[in-house]
Amino acid sequence: MADSWVNSAEGIGADLHLELAGSGGRRAALIDALREAVRGGRLAPGTGLPPYRSLAADLGVARNTVGDAYAELVAEGWLTARQGSGTRVAARAEPLDAHARVPVKAPARARGPRHDLRQGTPDASSFPRAAWLASYRRALQQAPNEAFGPGDPAGRIELRRALTEYLARVRGVRTEPGRIVVCSGFAHALRLLFPAVLQGPLAVESYGLGFHRELLAAASVRTVPLSLDEDGARVGELGRERGVLLTPAHQFPTGGPLHPERRAAVIDWARARGGVIVEDDYDGEFRYDRKPVGAVQGLDPERVIHIGSVSKSLSPALRLGWMVLPERYVDAVLAVKGEREAWAGVPDQLALADFIVSGSYDRHVRRMRQRYRRRRDRLVAALAERAPHIEVTGVAAGLHAVLRLPPGTEQSAVKAAVWQGVALDGLGDFRHPEAVTAAPDGLVVGYATPAEHAYAAAVDALCGVLPPV
Amino acid sequence: MADSWVNSAEGIGADLHLELAGSGGRRAALIDALREAVRGGRLAPGTGLPPYRSLAADLGVARNTVGDAYAELVAEGWLTARQGSGTRVAARAEPLDAHARVPVKAPARARGPRHDLRQGTPDASSFPRAAWLASYRRALQQAPNEAFGPGDPAGRIELRRALTEYLARVRGVRTEPGRIVVCSGFAHALRLLFPAVLQGPLAVESYGLGFHRELLAAASVRTVPLSLDEDGARVGELGRERGVLLTPAHQFPTGGPLHPERRAAVIDWARARGGVIVEDDYDGEFRYDRKPVGAVQGLDPERVIHIGSVSKSLSPALRLGWMVLPERYVDAVLAVKGEREAWAGVPDQLALADFIVSGSYDRHVRRMRQRYRRRRDRLVAALAERAPHIEVTGVAAGLHAVLRLPPGTEQSAVKAAVWQGVALDGLGDFRHPEAVTAAPDGLVVGYATPAEHAYAAAVDALCGVLPPV
Repeated sequence: MADSWVNSAEGIGADLHLELAGSGGRRAALIDALREAVRGGRLAPGTGLPPYRSLAADLGVARNTVGDAYAELVAEGWLTARQGSGTRVAARAEPLDAHARVPVKAPARARGPRHDLRQGTPDASSFPRAAWLASYRRALQQAPNEAFGPGDPAGRIELRRALTEYLARVRGVRTEPGRIVVCSGFAHALRLLFPAVLQGPLAVESYGLGFHRELLAAASVRTVPLSLDEDGARVGELGRERGVLLTPAHQFPTGGPLHPERRAAVIDWARARGGVIVEDDYDGEFRYDRKPVGAVQGLDPERVIHIGSVSKSLSPALRLGWMVLPERYVDAVLAVKGEREAWAGVPDQLALADFIVSGSYDRHVRRMRQRYRRRRDRLVAALAERAPHIEVTGVAAGLHAVLRLPPGTEQSAVKAAVWQGVALDGLGDFRHPEAVTAAPDGLVVGYATPAEHAYAAAVDALCGVLPPV
Repeated sequence: MADSWVNSAEGIGADLHLELAGSGGRRAALIDALREAVRGGRLAPGTGLPPYRSLAADLGVARNTVGDAYAELVAEGWLTARQGSGTRVAARAEPLDAHARVPVKAPARARGPRHDLRQGTPDASSFPRAAWLASYRRALQQAPNEAFGPGDPAGRIELRRALTEYLARVRGVRTEPGRIVVCSGFAHALRLLFPAVLQGPLAVESYGLGFHRELLAAASVRTVPLSLDEDGARVGELGRERGVLLTPAHQFPTGGPLHPERRAAVIDWARARGGVIVEDDYDGEFRYDRKPVGAVQGLDPERVIHIGSVSKSLSPALRLGWMVLPERYVDAVLAVKGEREAWAGVPDQLALADFIVSGSYDRHVRRMRQRYRRRRDRLVAALAERAPHIEVTGVAAGLHAVLRLPPGTEQSAVKAAVWQGVALDGLGDFRHPEAVTAAPDGLVVGYATPAEHAYAAAVDALCGVLPPV
């Protein structure tokens, strides 16, 4: 065993011709050299690679550099890493035959930061593999044959029925399966709606995802910012817009729920003006300190398009979401969706239906809610101790917090974070370019993304980059 | 047991108030009445429904009418049908609670025809459930945690590597993983390309899927028809178009491969004019009588966009396809695709990678190829015996045949088929509106869609609707 990798290591080292000039260059050069050695057949399938420290010592590079290079090549499929048997050349990594050899472009994939405190994604290491697989198995075994034929553009009836009951129970949504359209997530829903079904101008909250604003702009939809205060979006500012996009359960990213009076007021506006409310219910299941805030949709199912997905509750990798539509939009949305396109995979839809109906979804959400609440409490406690001058807001719900910073310190704090390998966003990144109200300094800190074991170090690193009193 | 359904049947019958006016009306009325009875709680979960013949006799309708109504309500989830225990009210079909009751719109789903000989979909009953589930299980168990985080818009590297090797081996495609973009199928690929990456005018074959022409028209891409002859598309007609969309392996729907000289000629055109070839390789795996025709892409990977999917080989329900791109288009396609949208579910991508690498895909294709060849032979034999005046063409490959009809008989043959419950398309349905060459009469007969046990009856019914000598 030792011999085999030592020989390999020497072979690798001799062929590397590393240019050890820049610090970034060593990792890239090592990746290229290893990839070429595998591709060219010098490293045969199954060959064991040396442990990090050995190769690092041989080449005079940091152990992290070797570890990063191995991880990248595992992700690319050239190497495999198994607990207990080290890193090996993948069995499938035969050299391409000669006529198939075309110039190689490395897949474009960003390396993750050391500490990922960006908002928006759940803890990927908590995906409930066993429970999901059980649902997928049952779904596949019980599916009628027609499930493997051309699909219904609205989505499988089994899933739409499960969602009808789930959303009524958990989110107070009032609908029925004929008004639900399954899609790939919130962005897909926006694309289906704009510009074919709905047109602008569309009022939006003055803080929100720039990604959504870009999508709307690409669809030639003008967005008009609504001011925010402690009661949420100031819907009294609504006028002649054709619709309004809101995050009523948990304003994104500032964090509060829309005040009950405003919920009523926006429904009144929609009825009086014939407007439509697009409700982005992106993390409605995650509320910690009091009862969940029901969906605005429940107040008037004919005025609200309610959109949700499993991207926060389960995983963005599943690409499963839903739109709950007023009846008058159903046919138009289905026409845009197309009969043969881009709807979610049917086995996944059936698996999600089973996952919901069997109670696995509730169990998973409950487990993650406890876990995220503990993380939030830990973050709040750490900041209270190490940065008591920083106010933490928006933490009654969701998977992120907003840290209010002293005026003028946001940009330097974001830069300091980058230097320390902490990925997070400044509050300003979410601001609508035409917003007129004050622009407080702040950081948006997602506490869901790190794996459980990595969270304490991430919070520690965060505390280190906050501006002093 | 007998008592329980007799009581139910009488209860149902008494409450139906059927309007037995039109022949379509009975089925719909029965569906509505049964749905309301379940929804309103008159038929409790678990209640057994009467056998078709009993209810049919009670209500004075055809047994088929009852069977259709039950099938529809099973599909909608109100009823369940299990081998051996008959049809029952589904356990989950509790009445919605009062505040959630909104007007009901029945899901829009077309009933299948009696004999489905439409082209385009594989036999749904042949989906390899066990093998696919095994791949899905391995994929889910072996996936790294990051697989459940935000995905790579290009698709999983594992799948792109598997496709690189598979397409090289089976289709002669020359590429590498960095040039493959996973998508949901051919239509999704067209949407990604047009109009953001490629513009018209686009030459197309004078016969093809109207659905594709509509998609292109919606993207403001003008299509220019190329004539077809026994050697495939007349690519010599290409001029100043910006690109050409071809089905070189098996012209759709007329059925021949593009002649080798024309394959070379279209590459020459693309090089000389800077044009791009979009290759729709929709059924390249299914060739019966001689060696497969390799992809045109292999002739010049920088001039051809090769598009394939599992929709014909495995199932359209998976929504998995791929684009093999010249390097210069990769970034543009990824930008259009968006970082967070509509890419296929990651577990499915990993499952397909495993399905390919493990050899299951090859085994499944081989099995289906034998099955479809037998069906083709059976069709050809039946027609030779019962309609020897009808020429059968385009059957060396693929999942459909073209039956050449006497001039002027296509429309009446299609109508006769409808009356006999045989779903198929006339050749004219595929003709480009601006095509200038002769418009022969014909029928496009898909022989893949019926389940194995239903195929003989479908061929028999087909023979019954063909025009006499």
